[in-house]
Amino acid sequence: MIALEVGLGDRSYPIYIGTGLLAETTLITKHLAQPRVAIVTNETIAPLYLDGLTKTLEAAGVRVLPIVLPDGESHKVWDTLNIVFDRMLTARCERKTTVVALGGGVVGDLAGFAAATYQRGVPFIQIPTTLLAQVDSSVGGKTAINHPLGKNMIGAFHQPVAVIADTDTLRTLPDRELSAGLAEVIKYGIIGDAPFFDWLEANLDRLLARDPEALAYAVRRSCENKAHVVAIDERETGPRALLNLGHTFGHAIEAGLGFGQWLHGEAVAAGMVLAARTSRALGHIGDAEVQRIERILARARLPVSAPDLGFERWLELMGHDKKVEAGTTRFILVRRIGEAYIDASVPRAVLERVLAPDAVHA
Amino acid sequence: MIALEVGLGDRSYPIYIGTGLLAETTLITKHLAQPRVAIVTNETIAPLYLDGLTKTLEAAGVRVLPIVLPDGESHKVWDTLNIVFDRMLTARCERKTTVVALGGGVVGDLAGFAAATYQRGVPFIQIPTTLLAQVDSSVGGKTAINHPLGKNMIGAFHQPVAVIADTDTLRTLPDRELSAGLAEVIKYGIIGDAPFFDWLEANLDRLLARDPEALAYAVRRSCENKAHVVAIDERETGPRALLNLGHTFGHAIEAGLGFGQWLHGEAVAAGMVLAARTSRALGHIGDAEVQRIERILARARLPVSAPDLGFERWLELMGHDKKVEAGTTRFILVRRIGEAYIDASVPRAVLERVLAPDAVHA
Repeated sequence: MIALEVGLGDRSYPIYIGTGLLAETTLITKHLAQPRVAIVTNETIAPLYLDGLTKTLEAAGVRVLPIVLPDGESHKVWDTLNIVFDRMLTARCERKTTVVALGGGVVGDLAGFAAATYQRGVPFIQIPTTLLAQVDSSVGGKTAINHPLGKNMIGAFHQPVAVIADTDTLRTLPDRELSAGLAEVIKYGIIGDAPFFDWLEANLDRLLARDPEALAYAVRRSCENKAHVVAIDERETGPRALLNLGHTFGHAIEAGLGFGQWLHGEAVAAGMVLAARTSRALGHIGDAEVQRIERILARARLPVSAPDLGFERWLELMGHDKKVEAGTTRFILVRRIGEAYIDASVPRAVLERVLAPDAVHA
Repeated sequence: MIALEVGLGDRSYPIYIGTGLLAETTLITKHLAQPRVAIVTNETIAPLYLDGLTKTLEAAGVRVLPIVLPDGESHKVWDTLNIVFDRMLTARCERKTTVVALGGGVVGDLAGFAAATYQRGVPFIQIPTTLLAQVDSSVGGKTAINHPLGKNMIGAFHQPVAVIADTDTLRTLPDRELSAGLAEVIKYGIIGDAPFFDWLEANLDRLLARDPEALAYAVRRSCENKAHVVAIDERETGPRALLNLGHTFGHAIEAGLGFGQWLHGEAVAAGMVLAARTSRALGHIGDAEVQRIERILARARLPVSAPDLGFERWLELMGHDKKVEAGTTRFILVRRIGEAYIDASVPRAVLERVLAPDAVHA
């Protein structure tokens, strides 16, 4: 096991990464303010891990309230959140009761927002069980639910007290979700870690074959990248926005097709290709770099073509992005592999070319 | 005009108190991150102040999105909050758009929670138009909506960037709401400011007659008390809980009768009487002090008798209090006028006596 620290002063917290961590109860209990937790999970994850986790916690004297939600991005909405509030209030969970998110990004985002707002905030532990959640959503304190007018539009920054990434849970992950997680892993290489991108090109087959050592390294290196950015810009007033490479386009794809049609990581992959092509259209990178990006995403079994939403619909959907400032959509673009930047002045004509039906399907 | 500071490091903010402040546009504009605001108000306040405020802001080059909500505590719920989200998203409000709460405690709490969670948090200015909001709810960053199982159960700590308390707005305040505000003013005297309690006894008639000078002093002294407590305990892990004198009983009254039947301040008044009687039953204060508390509240035209909810229902409702810890309701009690404390060990028999039907109506 390794432990990384997200350095946020008195809100710093550890990320534990390794195998067999779900059975190491003290990783949880040492972070509890009272011996009581509400475990928020979903119908897919519960049969795999909920019983075991509940039993080991109860054996350690912890009262457990299990809350099992329906699975899927389409449930990351107020009605589902209210199930959590109802259950916690009925069970009289208190301000020192810890919410434990056991699952992927949807569970983590929703449970985290419940923890951020239940009685104005209770402690929170993330136990991510997907690659996407282990390398991205469980670290950094972003919590949210979706709104019909935009993804993650209602939320809060609420840092967990600990993140426990047990790489054993990746063994049961469906192939499609493994690939979706790899999209975010590859993203770290593109935005700020060229050596990691090189390593990913060399080791992608090992990751797809779920080589435990390779997966552990990818999770660790991704978390190191993320922890570094979060520590210097917790509230996304500056460099943290770079972590959104591919997300402005990607969110538009998710919203345009209806949440839950494409996995988040799939939309981000296609979005990163569009960001790369936009960067090329602006003269920052050449064909070779766009092709390297497309190739590694395709090898990871991710989409490199976006659906055709229609140009005006693209603009409308991207206009709801949280990075919009003074009416201008701010794009995360690529100066070279390993260096992303924020561009608030992408000409409409460039977007029109990049998003043309024959271009997105190219 | 005077300006007090709530000292919270880089989240410190001013409270402006005085007459004619609604017309002093720079008090708002100097705190804006972009020249754009969403003004959240209600159907009662809008006809009085919304037009004027909108015009002066627009004259200063600020884009204004007015959002007028139904009036009343029963609307401090998710569905109303979602009106704010819908309007802000449809109008494409951004992360630097400031939410301005124009109204009483319900508007401030709900608009504040909208600001805390819209796109994970946007800036927020409080313009309280009731005495209650000016002396209490607009200062300190507590935001919330109600849940069927408890008042203010879903919320966040989100500090405003400024509070503008224009005492002119108190002129149009209904008598009943003026009295409700005085409950919280009197509370500051009881919990930590005996000289202020003395002053209130001497000046209550001036306050009821809406003497501007007396009102301004009461608002100022209340805000000073509150700002001091908030600065030393922003998240209510310690002394800030003392501000909840009368609130555990009071919230039970509000929830037990259905939100909106009693005004918050009325419930707090009756709750403070119950807290005083509990303190007397425990031997901390005598009849004379209980009578002083009852007398000043009665003079302020506030209820000093609680409704009969039935003992088990009282306990159940108080069990949902956010101060509950390890299953124990923590009461704010009075050691003497000017000194409150937290008591987690009030015997059931004492509560049974204090809450007996003939006792609450005594």
